[in-house]
Amino acid sequence: MTVSYNQLAARRLDRISALSDGLFAIAMTLIVLEIRLPEAAGIRSEQDLWGALLNLSPRLVTYLLSFLTLGIFWSGQQTQLNYFANADRHLSWINLGFLAGIALMPFSTSVLAEFITFRIALLVYWLNIFLLGGLLYFAWIYASRAGLVRQDAGPDVSAALKRRIVVAQALYAVGALLCVINTYWSIGFIVLVQLNFAIAPRIPWLSRI
Amino acid sequence: MTVSYNQLAARRLDRISALSDGLFAIAMTLIVLEIRLPEAAGIRSEQDLWGALLNLSPRLVTYLLSFLTLGIFWSGQQTQLNYFANADRHLSWINLGFLAGIALMPFSTSVLAEFITFRIALLVYWLNIFLLGGLLYFAWIYASRAGLVRQDAGPDVSAALKRRIVVAQALYAVGALLCVINTYWSIGFIVLVQLNFAIAPRIPWLSRI
Amino acid sequence: MTVSYNQLAARRLDRISALSDGLFAIAMTLIVLEIRLPEAAGIRSEQDLWGALLNLSPRLVTYLLSFLTLGIFWSGQQTQLNYFANADRHLSWINLGFLAGIALMPFSTSVLAEFITFRIALLVYWLNIFLLGGLLYFAWIYASRAGLVRQDAGPDVSAALKRRIVVAQALYAVGALLCVINTYWSIGFIVLVQLNFAIAPRIPWLSRI
Amino acid sequence: MTVSYNQLAARRLDRISALSDGLFAIAMTLIVLEIRLPEAAGIRSEQDLWGALLNLSPRLVTYLLSFLTLGIFWSGQQTQLNYFANADRHLSWINLGFLAGIALMPFSTSVLAEFITFRIALLVYWLNIFLLGGLLYFAWIYASRAGLVRQDAGPDVSAALKRRIVVAQALYAVGALLCVINTYWSIGFIVLVQLNFAIAPRIPWLSRI
Repeated sequence: MTVSYNQLAARRLDRISALSDGLFAIAMTLIVLEIRLPEAAGIRSEQDLWGALLNLSPRLVTYLLSFLTLGIFWSGQQTQLNYFANADRHLSWINLGFLAGIALMPFSTSVLAEFITFRIALLVYWLNIFLLGGLLYFAWIYASRAGLVRQDAGPDVSAALKRRIVVAQALYAVGALLCVINTYWSIGFIVLVQLNFAIAPRIPWLSRI
Repeated sequence: MTVSYNQLAARRLDRISALSDGLFAIAMTLIVLEIRLPEAAGIRSEQDLWGALLNLSPRLVTYLLSFLTLGIFWSGQQTQLNYFANADRHLSWINLGFLAGIALMPFSTSVLAEFITFRIALLVYWLNIFLLGGLLYFAWIYASRAGLVRQDAGPDVSAALKRRIVVAQALYAVGALLCVINTYWSIGFIVLVQLNFAIAPRIPWLSRI
Repeated sequence: MTVSYNQLAARRLDRISALSDGLFAIAMTLIVLEIRLPEAAGIRSEQDLWGALLNLSPRLVTYLLSFLTLGIFWSGQQTQLNYFANADRHLSWINLGFLAGIALMPFSTSVLAEFITFRIALLVYWLNIFLLGGLLYFAWIYASRAGLVRQDAGPDVSAALKRRIVVAQALYAVGALLCVINTYWSIGFIVLVQLNFAIAPRIPWLSRI
Repeated sequence: MTVSYNQLAARRLDRISALSDGLFAIAMTLIVLEIRLPEAAGIRSEQDLWGALLNLSPRLVTYLLSFLTLGIFWSGQQTQLNYFANADRHLSWINLGFLAGIALMPFSTSVLAEFITFRIALLVYWLNIFLLGGLLYFAWIYASRAGLVRQDAGPDVSAALKRRIVVAQALYAVGALLCVINTYWSIGFIVLVQLNFAIAPRIPWLSRI
């Protein structure tokens, strides 16, 4: 009986973690490159430079938005990986798909930064977030069925991990829908949602989700 | 008796893994930069932006193609490193050669993305894949002979690892040959081969390889 | 009783370290890109090239300044992480904020390199350093209160870590204030402060801080 | 008695390794960006593309040269770190200086690639190599005196590590001097020296060094 390659391949959680940390680190640094330096030619006084830097503030907002997004998903994937006992090739590839979505973030961010008033730009950005949430959810479902989850992760842990993704994605969808009014409403709402996830204030009804 | 530097040098598998994870992470992120943002100047309506994004779809295909390629080789190298008990300086350098090939991927990808209808662009891309497969195969052969493979990796493991590389390279060669008809046939065929490796559907005659 | 997601999330110090090492590595490499190659068109003799390279020396100074800054904060964060026994989601997010500041460093560096005689450019750079120091201090305070610090880190360790941040930030503030005279005085003073932190000469009154 | 910050700072070898692996990975990938894609505008036939790719061959040579350089120094630093039992803040900073030199490699490489016939370009490149070798040597000397070297690294190991650096730097200096004749002689000689270090053929008088 021959051994199939697929039984041997890509079984190490630590390599998935290391690749992810590298990729997140690069994506987090590349999104800064969207905050482009003002042209030296037009700037002759301190006021000119001050004005030019103020003009960059919308790009600073999209930078913060994307850094929060990346931070939330880094944190989410880490939490999930922490509850896996083993990997197999399928789980590795679901995570590679997730990382392909992370690698697309600098692109989606620059589409949003460049065309901030366009609904399609916002939908591209939201689609990227939706893809990431979907793959994270799928990874958990797959790992549960394939018996790759650690024994000490009871049904309450599983419920908490899944609930967080569903609630977050529902809120992002609401944010995306707000672009019917205006893309700035969408961005404002999504930033608020993300700040809540990042800061996690101790408001009873908020911290339960 | 003096100790030779070559007996001391570069013996750590974990450093090879860490360098590889970093390099793969960067290559996976750089290939996204080929999906270049549409020029803001020409875009005045949602339709304009929609059209401009649609025009990017061939580049999205080459991005996915290259991400799949990088994922397959990351997975392949990881599987192999997993079966090594030790490294020596030669094994380190074969892996450095492999990583030099990975670092060339963003270049080959941009040649293919920019000149997608040219046969030479496709051959450059295929040559890069061939180089990677060849070095991976050579690393296994070398490690086997130098006694660097783990004791629990029996001949069936060795056969499975080598068979996978040979089958994959044969299929890539068929894909490259299809450029006699048309480069799109080549790309389509290679994407199908890679999706099969990534998804690994449970089709009996396919999963045996 | 349901488990809250926030109790489960982002508890691993090793993942914070790995993300940080990746992000610092990229920031340290990107700041080199500010040392831009002279235009090939205007260069016809060895003298031309020599002159063009000499013209790059102010950019080499800002590169060294930023490399020192990044090295000091890499070293400072590492020292701090070393004294943590555990992480929780809040500590992870404070560190993500710190990393967002590190990712901004290449931008602040290029503002300073491009507009080296402008006070606002220097203040942008200083603000970035201040943000990093502030978050590092805040991380230590938070971890102390949340009981995340290792048992063997006594009050003297805590005092030494906090004293270093306060002294360094006070010196940076003095450096920033020197821009009232001239930005070159500021840069010179900050470089001297940083060289002292990097080299740590055995001068009694200096090494006590 | 107060604890000094410098006694606590930056003592972890694994963090130095991780930062180094990240930085080497990025430098190895950035040097590929020097192999710039031919302009799409001028290329209308397979012959045009073939010609344009052939024109890139000098840049492929400088890429290989720099990849070999980076591989040799990655391997050298790894070998050295392997023989350290501990780090202290001074050793960390010597290694940060070494990494600053590695981060400069993409710049030196592009100077050489752009101005391949100029002696000053070659001297810039050689100076970078000399700086790296010097810091590696200095790191070993410092660690030996500060008692940071592992007990099992006897005087023969120390001699082998130091001999390798001295021999390599002597050969690089000979290569640099050959630019009196022609920069191509220098590059050819240095590539040969590096291929010898990378491949380490079993030639008795060569493998002793």
